[in-house]
Amino acid sequence: MPADTAADGGGIPPVPVFFLSDSTGISAETMGNALLIQFPELRFERHVIPFITTVQEARRVVAVLDAAMAGPVTPLAFSTTAVTEIRDVLHRSSCPLIDFFDLHMSRVESILGVQGQRVAARLHGVGDIQRYNARMAAVEYAIEHDDGQSLRALDRADVILVAPSRCGKTPTTMYLALQHGVFVANYPLVPEDFGSAELPRPVRALRDRCFGITTTPARLSQVRQERRPNSGYASLEQCSYELRCADALYRRHRIPVINSSAKSVEEMSTVILQFLKHG
Amino acid sequence: MPADTAADGGGIPPVPVFFLSDSTGISAETMGNALLIQFPELRFERHVIPFITTVQEARRVVAVLDAAMAGPVTPLAFSTTAVTEIRDVLHRSSCPLIDFFDLHMSRVESILGVQGQRVAARLHGVGDIQRYNARMAAVEYAIEHDDGQSLRALDRADVILVAPSRCGKTPTTMYLALQHGVFVANYPLVPEDFGSAELPRPVRALRDRCFGITTTPARLSQVRQERRPNSGYASLEQCSYELRCADALYRRHRIPVINSSAKSVEEMSTVILQFLKHG
Repeated sequence: MPADTAADGGGIPPVPVFFLSDSTGISAETMGNALLIQFPELRFERHVIPFITTVQEARRVVAVLDAAMAGPVTPLAFSTTAVTEIRDVLHRSSCPLIDFFDLHMSRVESILGVQGQRVAARLHGVGDIQRYNARMAAVEYAIEHDDGQSLRALDRADVILVAPSRCGKTPTTMYLALQHGVFVANYPLVPEDFGSAELPRPVRALRDRCFGITTTPARLSQVRQERRPNSGYASLEQCSYELRCADALYRRHRIPVINSSAKSVEEMSTVILQFLKHG
Repeated sequence: MPADTAADGGGIPPVPVFFLSDSTGISAETMGNALLIQFPELRFERHVIPFITTVQEARRVVAVLDAAMAGPVTPLAFSTTAVTEIRDVLHRSSCPLIDFFDLHMSRVESILGVQGQRVAARLHGVGDIQRYNARMAAVEYAIEHDDGQSLRALDRADVILVAPSRCGKTPTTMYLALQHGVFVANYPLVPEDFGSAELPRPVRALRDRCFGITTTPARLSQVRQERRPNSGYASLEQCSYELRCADALYRRHRIPVINSSAKSVEEMSTVILQFLKHG
């Protein structure tokens, strides 16, 4: 498990940051980190305090925040807690608190012309059970169809990621399935596939759902070295060859291409989702 | 792929909602949805507009927003765009805009005593490459160790999820790997394991990293029915038996237990992460 790298290195003491939530804390972390990333010269020591659902728990959190206030660096807290009584307790701490609800809720209410509920809302809970079950089914489908393992029900796929081995198909597949319920299969292009101008037979009729992934030869070689050090498979020459052939195949069949060397799984997934929406 | 279910059913026209971002839009969606979930009586028609990185693109977005303003229901936009010139353009639209940066940045700056950069920051980009690679390695590990498939390097696991078949181990495994870079293996408890008071041999020495998952017999039976309809495996009787035995095993070996029938993968993951931190 990677350490909180933002708290590594450097000599300045880190700023204690608390993410407070009546649910998982995912929204509070996302909100807070979107702001903190704008301060790359500072170090932060992050603490997520989830499931603050009672006034008693809120009081315990206030004690934690007040203790941090006694430290050498003023801490900072982000809260997405929705329930008014709990928010009132949290505001009793002397720790600076960015209260997501405080700042936005009344604005949204006035735009929508409706009173918001202000209840602990479990945005990242099961929520809509049908949507949740679809996400879980998509994960199952993704695992079954990872790396061309199963060709059964390949035509159920919304998206088929094709690429040479180790270009980064699997994590993007999992992200799209888990976060968006997209049915994604991924299919490895192997050297035998490059003898033909055609797409490999199993995906030939499904070209419209294919996305090609490419990367740089240096990056691919590096990733393959970790798997099979000093192999022909990992050589820069072999990697260049496979990527050149794959790129030609994508171009010939007008398959959209995403370069994984410069993009995160979240960014690649966003590009794919936009394609699915707008073509 | 599940439809945007919030836009299904009901007779009132949906409120068009736009999530504007210079990056993936994940933060804008998270922020907006945390507020919109408080208005369950309304329907929303969601549009993510990611990668707004130039003034020209921002102008095109303004045209989209202004067109929505001409519709029957006033739209609403959430923006996490950080660059001042782009934000200035977006604010020219007549569409109500909740500007995340506008509202929070100066507050955070004054608390931290440092000027924020206000650059397009790619919170969901590759970012810290070591941390990113650790997440990717964790996904690979999770797939290799899904469902007890490989016992190789089981002692590298930070977490081992144990449970009877179909209790929901796999999606939580993938979530912890993909989002948090936790090395998670999962190990299925099969009826043969219940003959002994011991944990199955491969995880016996790793008890401290084990988390047990349980669910309700009705829910387990329903999930198994989908896999193998009308089988003994899916019968309510068999499911009750396996869950009873598993619960006894967790109790006997003091393994923390999480009930997947009432919790999402995000919630289960949060519980596990808290355990890892605080024991």
